[in-house]
Amino acid sequence: MLIVKAGGGKDLHWAGLADDLVEVRARESVVLVHGGNAVRDELAARLNVPVRRVVSPSGVSSVYTDKEALDVFMMAYPGLASTEIVARLRRRGLEAVGFSGVDGGLWQARAKREILVRDGEKTKLLGGNLTGRVEGVDGRLLEVLLMAGFLPVLCAPALDEDGRIVNVDNDTAAAVTAITMKAETMVFLFEAPGFLADPDDPESRVPEIPSGAIPSRLASARGGMAKKLLAVSRALSGGVRTVYFGDGRVEHPLRDALAGRGTIFFKEGFS
Amino acid sequence: MLIVKAGGGKDLHWAGLADDLVEVRARESVVLVHGGNAVRDELAARLNVPVRRVVSPSGVSSVYTDKEALDVFMMAYPGLASTEIVARLRRRGLEAVGFSGVDGGLWQARAKREILVRDGEKTKLLGGNLTGRVEGVDGRLLEVLLMAGFLPVLCAPALDEDGRIVNVDNDTAAAVTAITMKAETMVFLFEAPGFLADPDDPESRVPEIPSGAIPSRLASARGGMAKKLLAVSRALSGGVRTVYFGDGRVEHPLRDALAGRGTIFFKEGFS
Repeated sequence: MLIVKAGGGKDLHWAGLADDLVEVRARESVVLVHGGNAVRDELAARLNVPVRRVVSPSGVSSVYTDKEALDVFMMAYPGLASTEIVARLRRRGLEAVGFSGVDGGLWQARAKREILVRDGEKTKLLGGNLTGRVEGVDGRLLEVLLMAGFLPVLCAPALDEDGRIVNVDNDTAAAVTAITMKAETMVFLFEAPGFLADPDDPESRVPEIPSGAIPSRLASARGGMAKKLLAVSRALSGGVRTVYFGDGRVEHPLRDALAGRGTIFFKEGFS
Repeated sequence: MLIVKAGGGKDLHWAGLADDLVEVRARESVVLVHGGNAVRDELAARLNVPVRRVVSPSGVSSVYTDKEALDVFMMAYPGLASTEIVARLRRRGLEAVGFSGVDGGLWQARAKREILVRDGEKTKLLGGNLTGRVEGVDGRLLEVLLMAGFLPVLCAPALDEDGRIVNVDNDTAAAVTAITMKAETMVFLFEAPGFLADPDDPESRVPEIPSGAIPSRLASARGGMAKKLLAVSRALSGGVRTVYFGDGRVEHPLRDALAGRGTIFFKEGFS
């Protein structure tokens, strides 16, 4: 099984990804997890709801989510982004079914009501945050859909331990889903050629990174990339054999990523 | 099997409906179809996108949907409304899974790009309308979910014959779904005590209406109610035995409706 996480940037080549999914699904089952940041940011601006990005003391960036921001999130992810993606995949002949981590109890999150954030040189505690970390996955809905030949298309939000809707990181959720479903392979597609040794230099792509080298790479990673590396590390520790990063903007994003044209992460001893 | 259509008004008693669903699901399988008009109207106002209600020459009201209105619709229905409803049902212990008519090719609509609308005394043709009429239902996704013990929670939009996303009427879609799934019973819950002989008099509830009397009732029905009557008529012609209208605002909306405290529609010869 293959888990593909497609980023929510506006330049992702969805037509190409749809073509590649047709190809890949002919040989194995696929679960697609998608983002929706570009749609969310545009909508937040229209509704005049600020998107508050915060950075943890360890340098991982996330979005602070109050009730208003969570509403915008739901409008953008399961509302606009998922519906458009499923429609596009269906037009390409794929039996896509979209749902969020809330449906079928798929993603079980632990709430992080209070988060530590960097504020210049200081660290402060921010409360009232409607986010969580996906810690459990109920794979039953996915199994039922895959068995029937559907292509599941997933995105945040999820439910926390009290059954409240919380925003969760899609990269982490994809990794925990891959572990639960015993997927051998994961692919992350986004708007860069792969993992870059220098985030400002698109020529600095690193073709291969063994799992042991991830911690040192974390030091040079920024924001969303740090979160992706943590998700990769978790996936490899949990049994996923290979994780591919690939450029989502090219004509064949998935085919190229699987051919190693981005970055390949692997667990030492398994390569 | 029972198909419940819960209206999208803001006074619907969702906590009570969730309790009733627990009760009813103990004896038969249920599919829930929901609206989201109140959420949609509020969001449209915030985004300054006008909700254009139009009336057909035969007196059936609908919403004219251009691309901007369709986006608002997707934000409100599969985005906000569905996610909140599924979360609420899950907190009540129900294995809810939400999706739209787009997912799994569930609702197949015929596009109505141009519609005839009343404009005072005249009738005019309005183009660029992104709505459709549900004419086919692919029940496979529903069957798979019901077989696995899930409670499917559905709403518009749907896909038209060219795979484009179109707004569809949830009442009609619920009726066609009931016919396809060979449901014996349908319940429509909304913000009135049942079918009213006089729409302005809440005391004028009609307890029973045989299918043959529906055409004459259509004459006194307004807007959304006319569309509901047409959906009832279609359901009864298609094999549904009994359709209940009930007040969605009471403490036990579904239990009361099934006990005949609203309006019961039945096909003559089957009562």
